[in-house]
Amino acid sequence: MVLDTTLRDGEQTPGVSLSVEQKLMIAEALDRLGVDIIEAGTAIASEGDFNAIKEISNAGLKAEICSFARIKKVDIDAAADANADSIFMVAPSSPIHISTKFPGKSEDDVIAMAVEAVEYAKERGLIVEFGGEDASRADLGFIKRLFAAAVDAGADRLTFADTVGVLTPEKSEAIMKELCSEFDVPIAIHCHDDFGLANINTVYAVKGGAKEFHATVNGLGERAGNAALEEVVMTLEVLYGIETNINKQNIYNTSKLVEKITGVALPLNKPIVGENAFTHESGIHTSAILRNSSAYEPITPEMVGRKRHLVLGKHAGRASVEAVMKEFGYKATEEQMKEILKRIKDMGDKGKRVTDADVRTIIETVLQVKREKRVVLEDLSIVSGMNIMPTASVKLKINGKEIIEAAIGLGPVDAAINAIKKAVKEFGDIELVSYRVDAITGGTDALVDVIVQLRRGDRIVTARGARTDIIMASVEAMLEGLNMLI
Amino acid sequence: MVLDTTLRDGEQTPGVSLSVEQKLMIAEALDRLGVDIIEAGTAIASEGDFNAIKEISNAGLKAEICSFARIKKVDIDAAADANADSIFMVAPSSPIHISTKFPGKSEDDVIAMAVEAVEYAKERGLIVEFGGEDASRADLGFIKRLFAAAVDAGADRLTFADTVGVLTPEKSEAIMKELCSEFDVPIAIHCHDDFGLANINTVYAVKGGAKEFHATVNGLGERAGNAALEEVVMTLEVLYGIETNINKQNIYNTSKLVEKITGVALPLNKPIVGENAFTHESGIHTSAILRNSSAYEPITPEMVGRKRHLVLGKHAGRASVEAVMKEFGYKATEEQMKEILKRIKDMGDKGKRVTDADVRTIIETVLQVKREKRVVLEDLSIVSGMNIMPTASVKLKINGKEIIEAAIGLGPVDAAINAIKKAVKEFGDIELVSYRVDAITGGTDALVDVIVQLRRGDRIVTARGARTDIIMASVEAMLEGLNMLI
Repeated sequence: MVLDTTLRDGEQTPGVSLSVEQKLMIAEALDRLGVDIIEAGTAIASEGDFNAIKEISNAGLKAEICSFARIKKVDIDAAADANADSIFMVAPSSPIHISTKFPGKSEDDVIAMAVEAVEYAKERGLIVEFGGEDASRADLGFIKRLFAAAVDAGADRLTFADTVGVLTPEKSEAIMKELCSEFDVPIAIHCHDDFGLANINTVYAVKGGAKEFHATVNGLGERAGNAALEEVVMTLEVLYGIETNINKQNIYNTSKLVEKITGVALPLNKPIVGENAFTHESGIHTSAILRNSSAYEPITPEMVGRKRHLVLGKHAGRASVEAVMKEFGYKATEEQMKEILKRIKDMGDKGKRVTDADVRTIIETVLQVKREKRVVLEDLSIVSGMNIMPTASVKLKINGKEIIEAAIGLGPVDAAINAIKKAVKEFGDIELVSYRVDAITGGTDALVDVIVQLRRGDRIVTARGARTDIIMASVEAMLEGLNMLI
Repeated sequence: MVLDTTLRDGEQTPGVSLSVEQKLMIAEALDRLGVDIIEAGTAIASEGDFNAIKEISNAGLKAEICSFARIKKVDIDAAADANADSIFMVAPSSPIHISTKFPGKSEDDVIAMAVEAVEYAKERGLIVEFGGEDASRADLGFIKRLFAAAVDAGADRLTFADTVGVLTPEKSEAIMKELCSEFDVPIAIHCHDDFGLANINTVYAVKGGAKEFHATVNGLGERAGNAALEEVVMTLEVLYGIETNINKQNIYNTSKLVEKITGVALPLNKPIVGENAFTHESGIHTSAILRNSSAYEPITPEMVGRKRHLVLGKHAGRASVEAVMKEFGYKATEEQMKEILKRIKDMGDKGKRVTDADVRTIIETVLQVKREKRVVLEDLSIVSGMNIMPTASVKLKINGKEIIEAAIGLGPVDAAINAIKKAVKEFGDIELVSYRVDAITGGTDALVDVIVQLRRGDRIVTARGARTDIIMASVEAMLEGLNMLI
C-alpha cells in the first residue's frame, strides 16, 4: 500500500507557514517513517515553496518527491525546475469547482486542458499523478471521461479527491471498485475529514482497490483537515491486516515533531498520538493496574513508539494510593485509607484537577505527617509596563531564613523568576532546566498552566503551577520544584 | 433515533473533574440541545456524583436522567436514591474483563449476578439499560446468552459496548443486525475512538438496526474518547438522511460550553466544531471569495449555529489582497501588486504567520502610504504580585483624544486588556473574540507570540504581538487589531 504524505495540504492549515528548513526537517522525518511519496509543496506558489521542493528533492531521500500543480504549464515548469520526481496535478471536476475556477468553460474544455497539461508534464519528464478535484461531488461519468483522457495522454496514476469530505465508506468503496475495474493505472484516494470520516473513507477505498492513499501527519489540513496518517496506517494494519511501509515505532516521534514545527497542538484525545491515547487515570505501576491497563487498551503503546502513562486523579483507586504510600514509606489504617480516598474524590468533585503532588499532600494531611515547606513565598511585587523596566522584588523564607532580592527581566515573568533564582543561590546550585507554558486559548482570563523542570546535581524534578495569572503560576511552579530540591 | 449523552464518560477524560454546579450547567445545555438521555454520572462513585445526579434529576429537564452502575446492589441503590430515571448497568463480557474484575468467576456466574442485579433494579423502579462491557472482544454467543438473561429479568434496553474501540463498520453493522433479529427490546451502541472509527462504527450500528447511540460532546472520554455527538448527528442527518432529535443550531454553543467547563481545548481541526472547520485562509468577504467558500464547504456553518470565517494568510491570493485594498481605498499598479504578493509569500516562507494586520502593513509599505495610527499607546503601567490585585493603568491617544483608564484583572495581562477595552468603549462596540498565546518553550526569556481576533459588527480581524514580555505582546496585538477597526 503506497502512502502519499501531503505536506502541502498540512501547510494549508490556516495559520501554519513553514520555512524551507522546517519543511526539510519534516521531509527527512517522513522518509525515516517510511512514507512512499512526499508531496512537498506547490512549486509555483512561492519562492519558498520552490526552494523547499528543490532542497527536499536533492536531499537524497528514498521517497518520491512530488509537487502539487494545477493544469497549467507554469505550474508544471516550476515543479520540473525544482527537480520534483512527480506532480500531483488536479483539474476541477464538479460543476461548482469548474464554474468557480474556469468560468464559462465546459467539461470538454476541462478535459482538453487536462490532456494538454498531462502531455506537457510527461515531456518535462515528470511522473504524473492526475486527480479530479471535488470528484465526490462530480458526475462519475465525467470523472471517467476525464480520467480516460488523462491516462491516454500519459498519466501514470489517478486520484479521486473527496475535497469537502462528503464521501461515506460504502460510496468510497463502490466508486473505487468501479474505477479500478476500468483503469489499469494505480488509483489513489484523497480524503478530508469534515464529518470525521476521512480515515474510514480512505480504508474503504483501499478495500475497493485503491493502491495508494493520501494522508497528513496529525490529520492537519484545511478546515477539519485530511485523513490522519497515524489513524489510517493503524486501522489498515491492525484492524484489516493490510500492510503499509510505515515504521510504526516512528509514528509518535514524527507526530510530535510536526506538532512542534507547525505549532498546531495535538488534541489530548487524538487517536494513537494524543496525550491521553494511552493514559489511564488510575494509579501508579502496580501489577494489578498494569493488568487492568491492557484490559483497556486495543494495542500496546510501544507499537507506535510510546509508553503507557498512568496518572493519579479523581478516579484514583485504593491500589494507586497504596502505591504512592509505599513509595514514601507511609502506612495507613483502614479508616485513614477511606478518608484519603474520600478527600481525593471530594477534590475532584469540586472540579479541580488532582495531581501527584495533590495526592501526596492529602496523604500527609490525613496521616498527620508534618512535612515543612523549606521554601515559602512571603511577598512578591512586580512592576511592568511601557517604558518601565520589568522589575520584581521577592521575599522568601528558606529554611527559616528570610531573604529579600530584586531583579529585572525581559518581561515580568522573567523578572520574577530571576529574583527567585537570586534568592535561592546560597542554598545550592539549582538550575531551571526548562520552562513551559501550555498554549493559552479562550481569553485573557483563561487558566495558565506552567510546568518547570529544575535540576540540582543529578536530580531533576518537575512541578506545575496553574493560575489565571501567568506570573503567579510561574512562581508557584518554581516554588513547588524548589521545595522538592531544598 | 435516541441519543444518550454520556456526561459520565466525558468526565472520565484524564484531568477532567466537574463540580455539581458544572454538571448541572452541562445537563441543562444538553437538554436544550435535545438529547434524549443524559447519563449524568455514577451515583455510587462519590458524594459529588450522587448530588449531581440528584440535582439534575430534580431540575425538571425533558431528558431521561441516567446513572451508570455496576451489577451491584449498592450501585443500584445509590442510583435510585439519587432519583435517577434509569441506570446504564454493565457486566464485564470479554474474557479479559471477566478475569480482571471478577477473578475466578465463570461466564455463568456473571450471568447469575447480572440477572439478580437487573431484577433488583426493576424492584427499585428504575428503567434498566443493560450493557456488555468490552462486548466487541467477547464471544458473541456469550453476549446473546447474557442479553437474553437480562431481558428475561426485566431489562428495558440493551447496549453493545466497544470499550476499547476495535470495531470496524462492517462488524458493527453485522453484529447489530444479528442482535436486533433476536431481541425485541431496543439495542444501543457505545463506541470508543481508539482508531478514529467511533463515529462510523456508531453510524453502521444504526444502519444495522440500533435504536439508540451513546456519544459525548466534543468526543471527550478516556484515552481517545467516545463517539463525538456532533460528528454522529451530522453524519446521520446530512449523509444518511437519518433524523435525530438534536437542535442542530445549538451544537456549536454546547460544544464551546463543554470546552470551557472541562478545560479541554477543542482541536483547531475538529470536524463540525473546531475553529478551522469553517475557516478559509483566503481573504475577506468579497462575493468571489464567498462563492469560493461554498465550493469548499460540505454544509453551511449556520446549520450548526456557526459563521463562516475568512482569514488572510500566507496563501492569500490576488483577490484577497485586492479586497483589502478596496476596503481601505488603496490602488496598486501591476508592479506594486506583484511586490505585495511576493512580500506576503516571503513572510510565510520564513515560517511566520501572516495576519490581517501584516497584510495591511505590507500593502502600505509597498504603496508608501503613511497611515497615521488612530490608536496610539502613550503609557502603560502594571502592578502585580502576591496579595496585590493585578492592576493596569493605560494612556491611549485615540483619534487625537487622550484617554486614561485603569482596570483590574485576573492577572496582569487580563488587567491590561481590560484597561484598553474600557478606554476604547466610546469608539465602538469592539469585542475580543479570541486571545491565543502559542505554547512558550525554552525559557522565561523566550519570545511570546500572541494572536488576537477582534470583531466590530460583521468584521473580524486578526493581529499579532510578539515580544519577550507577555503583557506587552498582548497589548501590541490588541492595538494592532484596534487600528484596523477604528
